[in-house]
Amino acid sequence: MSNAIFYHAGCPVCVSAESRILDVIDHNKVNLEIVHFGKGQANRIPEAEAHGVKSVPALVIDGEVLHINFGASMKTLKTADHLSSDRPTTLSKH
Amino acid sequence: MSNAIFYHAGCPVCVSAESRILDVIDHNKVNLEIVHFGKGQANRIPEAEAHGVKSVPALVIDGEVLHINFGASMKTLKTADHLSSDRPTTLSKH
Repeated sequence: MSNAIFYHAGCPVCVSAESRILDVIDHNKVNLEIVHFGKGQANRIPEAEAHGVKSVPALVIDGEVLHINFGASMKTLKTADHLSSDRPTTLSKH
Repeated sequence: MSNAIFYHAGCPVCVSAESRILDVIDHNKVNLEIVHFGKGQANRIPEAEAHGVKSVPALVIDGEVLHINFGASMKTLKTADHLSSDRPTTLSKH
């Protein structure tokens, strides 16, 4: 069984990638957790960075990071003061 | 059943991503084809570009492109004159 964490921030790029990942992943082989920084989970940004996540959306599988497309850099997330909204306006530009 | 194509060029970033994708994808739900530009399949670069692939490795699922990490731009691939080798040296720098 693999453990995977999909980190995202609610931007359209993230939501689209999340949908595709959920569709194609084998849920019998992979424990998948979704972490949405914009929904009260911004406290997990340091954990994501410790895994090597540089941008979101990102899928960490057993500690290995796959960055998917490019939604937003971690730096942008940390300086965004409106992360609590569902669709941060600065992120939706991507 | 979804149709997915994983385009890559044999660079380490690509090979690592390929391994992860093969591990976690649900092969009962997804027909996955692997296209290796460096192994006689460089003629499929135009097809990949038509799907919207900008860099490899990339996973196209039912026409939607997920760029994974960043191995090499399509421009680099098209100007590489040693694509026929298994591990193009310019790509392995990424």
